[in-house]
Amino acid sequence: MNILEIIDKKRINQPLTKEEITYFIENYVNGNIKDYQASALLMAICINGMNEEETFNLCDAMLKSGEIVDLSYVNGITVDKHSSGGVSDTTSIALIPILACAGLCSVKMSGAGLGFTGGTTDKLASFQGIDLQISQDKIKEIIGKCGCIIVSQSQNLVPADKKLYALRDTSSTIQSIPLIATSIMSKKIASGNDIIFLDVKTGKGAFMENAQDAKVLAETLIKIGSKYNKKVATLISDMNEPLGNGIGCYLEILDAIDVLNGKPSRLYDLVKFMAVKIMVLSEQYSEESATQKFDEIIESRQGYQRLLSMVELLNGNIESIKTMQSLTPTTTIYAKYNGYVESINAKELGLLVCDMGGGRKELDDKIDHSVGVKILKHIGDKVQKNEPIALIYNTNQKLSENLVCDRLESAITITTKKVEPTLLIKEYKHN
Amino acid sequence: MNILEIIDKKRINQPLTKEEITYFIENYVNGNIKDYQASALLMAICINGMNEEETFNLCDAMLKSGEIVDLSYVNGITVDKHSSGGVSDTTSIALIPILACAGLCSVKMSGAGLGFTGGTTDKLASFQGIDLQISQDKIKEIIGKCGCIIVSQSQNLVPADKKLYALRDTSSTIQSIPLIATSIMSKKIASGNDIIFLDVKTGKGAFMENAQDAKVLAETLIKIGSKYNKKVATLISDMNEPLGNGIGCYLEILDAIDVLNGKPSRLYDLVKFMAVKIMVLSEQYSEESATQKFDEIIESRQGYQRLLSMVELLNGNIESIKTMQSLTPTTTIYAKYNGYVESINAKELGLLVCDMGGGRKELDDKIDHSVGVKILKHIGDKVQKNEPIALIYNTNQKLSENLVCDRLESAITITTKKVEPTLLIKEYKHN
Repeated sequence: MNILEIIDKKRINQPLTKEEITYFIENYVNGNIKDYQASALLMAICINGMNEEETFNLCDAMLKSGEIVDLSYVNGITVDKHSSGGVSDTTSIALIPILACAGLCSVKMSGAGLGFTGGTTDKLASFQGIDLQISQDKIKEIIGKCGCIIVSQSQNLVPADKKLYALRDTSSTIQSIPLIATSIMSKKIASGNDIIFLDVKTGKGAFMENAQDAKVLAETLIKIGSKYNKKVATLISDMNEPLGNGIGCYLEILDAIDVLNGKPSRLYDLVKFMAVKIMVLSEQYSEESATQKFDEIIESRQGYQRLLSMVELLNGNIESIKTMQSLTPTTTIYAKYNGYVESINAKELGLLVCDMGGGRKELDDKIDHSVGVKILKHIGDKVQKNEPIALIYNTNQKLSENLVCDRLESAITITTKKVEPTLLIKEYKHN
Repeated sequence: MNILEIIDKKRINQPLTKEEITYFIENYVNGNIKDYQASALLMAICINGMNEEETFNLCDAMLKSGEIVDLSYVNGITVDKHSSGGVSDTTSIALIPILACAGLCSVKMSGAGLGFTGGTTDKLASFQGIDLQISQDKIKEIIGKCGCIIVSQSQNLVPADKKLYALRDTSSTIQSIPLIATSIMSKKIASGNDIIFLDVKTGKGAFMENAQDAKVLAETLIKIGSKYNKKVATLISDMNEPLGNGIGCYLEILDAIDVLNGKPSRLYDLVKFMAVKIMVLSEQYSEESATQKFDEIIESRQGYQRLLSMVELLNGNIESIKTMQSLTPTTTIYAKYNGYVESINAKELGLLVCDMGGGRKELDDKIDHSVGVKILKHIGDKVQKNEPIALIYNTNQKLSENLVCDRLESAITITTKKVEPTLLIKEYKHN
């Protein structure tokens, strides 16, 4: 077998065999196949695609490139929730403690944020002293004590994906449904959970801007999961505007805490939708009993207490919440006239916070957890002239306050005509 | 400007601007753009193509990456002849001295052979002591004395092509008409000759197996040449079977000498066709006077004498011809039954001689000039049982004699039904 013949086959749009795909992954990971050969093949896949069998074979070869986590030590059903990446998406931090209270265990491994999308572990790092890179033994211990955990992704989880993802990112070979699907699913299967709940974001602040592509991606994810006898559910949800109110680590932790304390919001609605669906998928709840259980967890503040326990077991200082809450905005943005919020450019706000130092441009960039912006209105909301519509937390002045104000104001448009709120949940499917 | 955006544009099949193409070439040559980015872009070009304007802009950017030869010191018209690469194609070595006798000067820069196709400079190196890497002053001196020269391509001639070609070769991004056309034409324009005569080979022993692709390539070559006000002619000629009789450096030099001595062959027919057409293109001859001139040059053996003068001026020992002629075959292959030659797999014979040590697999491989095979029959020829049909010159026994015999016999098929000879010249066009 020869990489040049494999590339050539895909160039002329012929399907690759299982052996060819395995050869590619094994030899790319071990360095026999060069980056410039891999990127040529990835581009041919981006343009010519892969059929179902090829996609499954690619996922399988990637999966087998590293360790596969064994969660058999957990009593009961395990759940993995994943989002395809959005702006102000902090669902995992609220959802996972709630699921734990409902008797469903999550061992969630999360990557770092990059570009305009945040990372769950970056947000958790807002708790001073928190340690998210821990041993398997420690993970088992924490699971035994609080029934859920969020940690940094293991270095040996799908090394093929690490190498391929870095290459795709620097060779413009990101946009391919088989490549995106196998990147997600190889890690989810390797993580060992029973139920895989995938939130595919669509809209201007998402990886998949196009709704049709999101639909095809969701179907592909379910098909791959079915091959591994996993329970897989996909949600297509809106990311034209930021999901929550805050963008930036501190602000997003506060959003999650608001959900756990029962404060109504779009984020609350999404967390509730997911939690109920996951409980039903576990076959331990009906839709009705799941809804009842969710409300009970929120009302009793069990979910909030569970988040604090998890943070403390990870050596995080829960007093940090006070620091987050005491943060004061550097500027308040006011509506210039009466009207309705027409659009909020989620991607631009994600990029703005990234530029302010709240996100990463390169994987080894340091993050400032305190910076961010908070929107006080969502699409369709009525606003009155001089009413506050957004807050800026430009605490380190990496960008000038004027520039941040200008960019934030340009990202929000207000119209005099009535505007309908965006539909948050677009489609839900499972196998 | 940003290479990732440029790659992305071509991925979604949008045309690139002149500025984007120039940015790519300049930054790839200077190392700012990485091989893995360039190969992704090249693959997108292979699959999605380039329009006429992009192709011209690519050629122009490549051309400007290095020196452009000034041949204004030559009195009269200059001619460059190029073949897209074939097996047993030694036309240049016979043609160029003939053109010089007809008053048309060639300053031919030639690359080394790679894979199954031979290189003109490798063949000339059969003359002991010959020096093909010479200074501009020396080139001028030789042109002054004998009116023609074949030398190794200058290191600074289209450096962009050198780098791109090496990458294409190792990333399966060879098969693209815009990439092939710009690779050829950037070098031809940079070489500075007035008339560019391009022989596009088609068939199993050619780069372009498909006749339709060869036609599109020929049209693209003419269009590019016209933009530079060059006289460009393209010939589409057959390469399903080897052009001459010998494959291997010594044997191919002997084929060229046979042409110059007037011995009839397919190679002779092709050289005559080209020489006459080029004389007509120079506007100094009619078809009739050109034919008359050609016959006169052959009959008087002026062409042969001119080749010897050129070799001597390049410090080559013309006595080497005796060494070449004294070479004896290690095995003779006989026909197993009466019939007609149905096919001779040119590519397989090219690869066989390469494997025997007569060609290069890597650019720094050393060549054994003495090895080769000689076919005594062409497609359509009648053969009788036990009649010799091919000779093997396996002088260094790098491959076992048995293996060479088997591969040679498998490459030639004989049938009992009458077979038509192949049509050597398929199409001729010029601007």
